[in-house]
Amino acid sequence: MIVTIIGIGLIGGSLAITLRENGFAQTIIGVDMNEESLHKALRRKIIDEALPLEQAIEKSQLIVVAVPVDSLLVLIPKILDQITHQVVIDVGSTKVTIMDTVRNHPKRRHFVATHPMAGTEFSGIEAAIPNLFDEKYTVICDVEDSAPAAVEVVEKLYRSIPMKIIYLNAKDHDVHTAYVSHISHISSFALALTVLEKEKDEERIFELASTGFSSTVRLAKSEPDTWIPIFRQNRDNLLDVLDEHINTLSQFRSLLIKRDFDKIRKLMEEANHIKRILNQKKV
Amino acid sequence: MIVTIIGIGLIGGSLAITLRENGFAQTIIGVDMNEESLHKALRRKIIDEALPLEQAIEKSQLIVVAVPVDSLLVLIPKILDQITHQVVIDVGSTKVTIMDTVRNHPKRRHFVATHPMAGTEFSGIEAAIPNLFDEKYTVICDVEDSAPAAVEVVEKLYRSIPMKIIYLNAKDHDVHTAYVSHISHISSFALALTVLEKEKDEERIFELASTGFSSTVRLAKSEPDTWIPIFRQNRDNLLDVLDEHINTLSQFRSLLIKRDFDKIRKLMEEANHIKRILNQKKV
Repeated sequence: MIVTIIGIGLIGGSLAITLRENGFAQTIIGVDMNEESLHKALRRKIIDEALPLEQAIEKSQLIVVAVPVDSLLVLIPKILDQITHQVVIDVGSTKVTIMDTVRNHPKRRHFVATHPMAGTEFSGIEAAIPNLFDEKYTVICDVEDSAPAAVEVVEKLYRSIPMKIIYLNAKDHDVHTAYVSHISHISSFALALTVLEKEKDEERIFELASTGFSSTVRLAKSEPDTWIPIFRQNRDNLLDVLDEHINTLSQFRSLLIKRDFDKIRKLMEEANHIKRILNQKKV
Repeated sequence: MIVTIIGIGLIGGSLAITLRENGFAQTIIGVDMNEESLHKALRRKIIDEALPLEQAIEKSQLIVVAVPVDSLLVLIPKILDQITHQVVIDVGSTKVTIMDTVRNHPKRRHFVATHPMAGTEFSGIEAAIPNLFDEKYTVICDVEDSAPAAVEVVEKLYRSIPMKIIYLNAKDHDVHTAYVSHISHISSFALALTVLEKEKDEERIFELASTGFSSTVRLAKSEPDTWIPIFRQNRDNLLDVLDEHINTLSQFRSLLIKRDFDKIRKLMEEANHIKRILNQKKV
């Protein structure tokens, strides 16, 4: 299959490596506004050729759009305008807004909305790695709004990696990802800021920061260009979880003030329950 | 050297493995209230023999106390009462309280307060691993209150691993560790609770949780028996950082409500600065 990937960054680049390696794609065409990214991708042989958008669409059977979720809103309709027989997918972290955007497009059924649940705190083609998606979950959203033939191609793509597929409606997707991904980013950014603010003596952070701290603030290294559009589109769900998180922290605060360590123990034992869930996952 | 390790868990057990492997200890004696832990440590040959406290002290030259920080307050004075020539160290995560406890002990100068900045979210002898401490930092506290000969032994121990040593007073130590370790634990426990509370459908967490989420809540798997005494002893510093953290999260909340994404970007870019600090460390 000839696959065009638009946005040759962490996600698009890693997907290109995987789909070439496992034989799903015979040819990968790269499209990116950043010339330097395309050159790097060509030199690393992550893509076979770099083309302007229109030519790339014309030559390919499947188009993967791996750009920030605000750019998706412009790009997906534009691509749908141009395609004839091609299948188009996105890999964005929010779904309700893009679904609303394409809802009445005459070629809506060529589009399949997906979200492979994988990533790192790094970005750009330099961060593209093999095996990023292996054995992880991918979401296909509002599957009934896409043509069965298009869905079949996309399922074949994800199974080739292999990824496990779950089907959600866009609304549920955005609620769940606020819980299990977006709030982690806010929490991590806030923790990094808190510590940077408090610890003016950076050398001390450098020396004393243990692996626990590094793990908790890892996501604070993430790219604002990727995450701000996500926060913008999923603002209401994020606010809801953020309120709950601030309440939980305030509960710890109040129990510490009252020195109620029995109740703190109860909360910690409840939180320990996350162990059972994450261990099943082995991440 | 004949070394007694009291508390054969994650820290004590890992230290035993390392000190035996690098030749610092010729014999390691294990002391633990938990018989099963001692048996496991003997079977894994992490310790050479298991003895009651008094006999272990008598036979050894160096005593490492690796128990929760509340038990330290009882054990360290008791051990100091009994020793003649031995050196005693702790490896606890808080320092002001233990320093106050031993301040006027006639054998205070035999005691060296240390804190190797390493750990995992697991606990018990089952979690003991080689290389846990390699190339990490260890703190030696209030070094002037210990006998130079005792300090020399302890420096030799940590350099044998090898670990890098920094010297802090107990008060600064407790302030810094609240920033770079203790608040991460509270944040992680609170985040796990928030998501468990919100996501009653556990299967969805299991499926959708990406590595980012797992990384952010990893510390929520930690053992309350270890961490509650730390929170109790470092309560005031922890409350101070926790207040700041809640304020930072509330700032994000308020900016989200106002849709002020320019200001959110500024905060995220500031937080990105943590990258430079952690990358130097390569953790």
